[in-house]
Amino acid sequence: MISKSSLYHVVEAMAPLYVAMGLGYASVRFRAFTSEQCAGINHFVALFAMPLLIFRMISSNDPYAMNLRFIAADTIQKAAILAALALWARLSARGSLAWVVTLFSLATLPNTIIMGVPILRGMYGSMSGTLMVQIVVLQFAFWYVLVVFLFEYMAAQRALVAKQQRAAAPAAVVLTVLDGDQQINASAVVPVTEGDRDADTNTEAAMPPPPAEAEAAMAAPSAKLILLMAAKKILKIPSIHASMLGLVWSFIAYREGIKLPTIIDDSVAIISVSATGLATFSVGTFMAQQSRFISCGYSVASLAMAMRFLVGPAVMAASSLAVGLHGDLLHVGIVQAALPLAVISFVYAKEYNVHPEIMSTGVIVGTFASFPITIIYYILLGL
Amino acid sequence: MISKSSLYHVVEAMAPLYVAMGLGYASVRFRAFTSEQCAGINHFVALFAMPLLIFRMISSNDPYAMNLRFIAADTIQKAAILAALALWARLSARGSLAWVVTLFSLATLPNTIIMGVPILRGMYGSMSGTLMVQIVVLQFAFWYVLVVFLFEYMAAQRALVAKQQRAAAPAAVVLTVLDGDQQINASAVVPVTEGDRDADTNTEAAMPPPPAEAEAAMAAPSAKLILLMAAKKILKIPSIHASMLGLVWSFIAYREGIKLPTIIDDSVAIISVSATGLATFSVGTFMAQQSRFISCGYSVASLAMAMRFLVGPAVMAASSLAVGLHGDLLHVGIVQAALPLAVISFVYAKEYNVHPEIMSTGVIVGTFASFPITIIYYILLGL
Repeated sequence: MISKSSLYHVVEAMAPLYVAMGLGYASVRFRAFTSEQCAGINHFVALFAMPLLIFRMISSNDPYAMNLRFIAADTIQKAAILAALALWARLSARGSLAWVVTLFSLATLPNTIIMGVPILRGMYGSMSGTLMVQIVVLQFAFWYVLVVFLFEYMAAQRALVAKQQRAAAPAAVVLTVLDGDQQINASAVVPVTEGDRDADTNTEAAMPPPPAEAEAAMAAPSAKLILLMAAKKILKIPSIHASMLGLVWSFIAYREGIKLPTIIDDSVAIISVSATGLATFSVGTFMAQQSRFISCGYSVASLAMAMRFLVGPAVMAASSLAVGLHGDLLHVGIVQAALPLAVISFVYAKEYNVHPEIMSTGVIVGTFASFPITIIYYILLGL
Repeated sequence: MISKSSLYHVVEAMAPLYVAMGLGYASVRFRAFTSEQCAGINHFVALFAMPLLIFRMISSNDPYAMNLRFIAADTIQKAAILAALALWARLSARGSLAWVVTLFSLATLPNTIIMGVPILRGMYGSMSGTLMVQIVVLQFAFWYVLVVFLFEYMAAQRALVAKQQRAAAPAAVVLTVLDGDQQINASAVVPVTEGDRDADTNTEAAMPPPPAEAEAAMAAPSAKLILLMAAKKILKIPSIHASMLGLVWSFIAYREGIKLPTIIDDSVAIISVSATGLATFSVGTFMAQQSRFISCGYSVASLAMAMRFLVGPAVMAASSLAVGLHGDLLHVGIVQAALPLAVISFVYAKEYNVHPEIMSTGVIVGTFASFPITIIYYILLGL
């Protein structure tokens, strides 16, 4: 049974996050910040504050003293959900790689760094903060890399199919498409609008599919190309740099028994301490800038919420029990799996234009809903 | 004699500030941030981070346990410099209120919150952090209020003189000016450009001065008006709100022996911890955005540096000795008086257009120079 005082402790841990988010929301609603100014703050978070926070977390985590059972449970949860989604995509006519990535992100990638560490610490003490960092290590060292790889794979596939269709299409159509391309190139200063892209896609969709042999022959070099493009993209993400660097440093530091000099640690900290406040502020500005809270329809929104708050935690509970976790470790695993969707998942979905409206709803509604949901999970697990 | 290890301790305290500043500088130079995005970060600092840091500092300072001698020394330094400047303005033909305010700010308003607290703590331990907060209390509760009042006074005087000149000018000219005003009012959405203002001033300057009696008669109600305008302006500055609120709370809390609830303190802290990093980052972006490092000419720049790094500390030393300070207290007083110019002083100078180029040079050159100068003061005082 959870006591009133420990419940208040959890509210104490969550309140500052909602205050920062509320400030961000109000700042946009009362026009204290323009959207370009918000973009500046968001850019600062993505370029400096988050990567440095991730580096600081991961570099101070002892990789030789990680809780292998806990990590196994987390890995099994994510792998099981990914396998199930892949199977569904293969068997169902409605399945596609885009839906696999979207549902996978929804179910398995909660906001661990910004919300997870302080909230779980408030619930189960500093031990759970250490466990959260271990999940963060895997998230950034492996799972986000996989997600970005899949996004790049889809983008490369689309580009390849478009190219093949142009090659296979009659000369007249090719000319039209080329004309369109040249127009877009000529007006490179103006960003391509959604409308342009849709029109382009429609033209391609209306064209007959290329002969099967040609596709197979031309698809051959694509695997290597896709890998290269994905690798290039991944190497441009500051948070991924930071996590790799932090991981390498932690392996060296904890083997040799050395520490980062205070002067470097403090120089990282002066920026990284701003991450939690600025990132939640930024989520608030993001919410206020959306025209609708639920931009993907109620049934899809319900599916998204079910993946986030039911499927994710349920599979985590099953995999935790399977590897023999119990007590606080089990509870930490389940509660962290029920945290709101990570904002970074929306950022990628938006960048690659793969169901961004679902991810936006996931972040907005998820963040609002998580306050009661996280507390309900906490109370139920404490019974 | 200062030991090598304590000198390294000081470098350790200063390095993170310069790292954050360097990041800001590089971000603009390598075009990672647009100037509007920089404005967003600066706006966040001015609207939320700084006021909340000031509130947190002042509200946790025990106003019944302040070091009265130390405060007296600081007050005497500022009052003496202000009196000397006022006397000079009265006696010299080149003296003016604008120069009094500029030279006063240069000599007496160092960057106490962002640079002072961490650097002085690195030099003389946590005792000096507490002393710095006491100077911050007076700075925000009194001295910045005075500076803003003087700026408002000058602005009101200029506006009044312009109005009188319009009233005294021939009817035809009045009509033209009124037309101009109406045009500006009609296009209130578009900010008035410098060019407009200059044109306006030129028109006024070309007009004959009004008869002396009329000026005296119309100037009578202005004192009240100026006070009102200054009060209105001051009440709009978030940092001043925050310092007043913090001061009131500290008087209540330390008399009644109560503390801010953790939930409120943490909600303030989630934003306020970002102030130091973001504010120094912002100074770096400010430096990079200036077309010239020294925008006011070398002789004026030298005067500014002399006021900041020689006159200010020298008068502080004299007033400290006069009230009987010695040892670390004396040293803290002198070193804090030799810190670089507060950025907020530039912000106000820019807003009221009173020697902004001198204040910009004061911040830029002063911040670069302060690294060796602060350390030299520290070593000399330790001999």
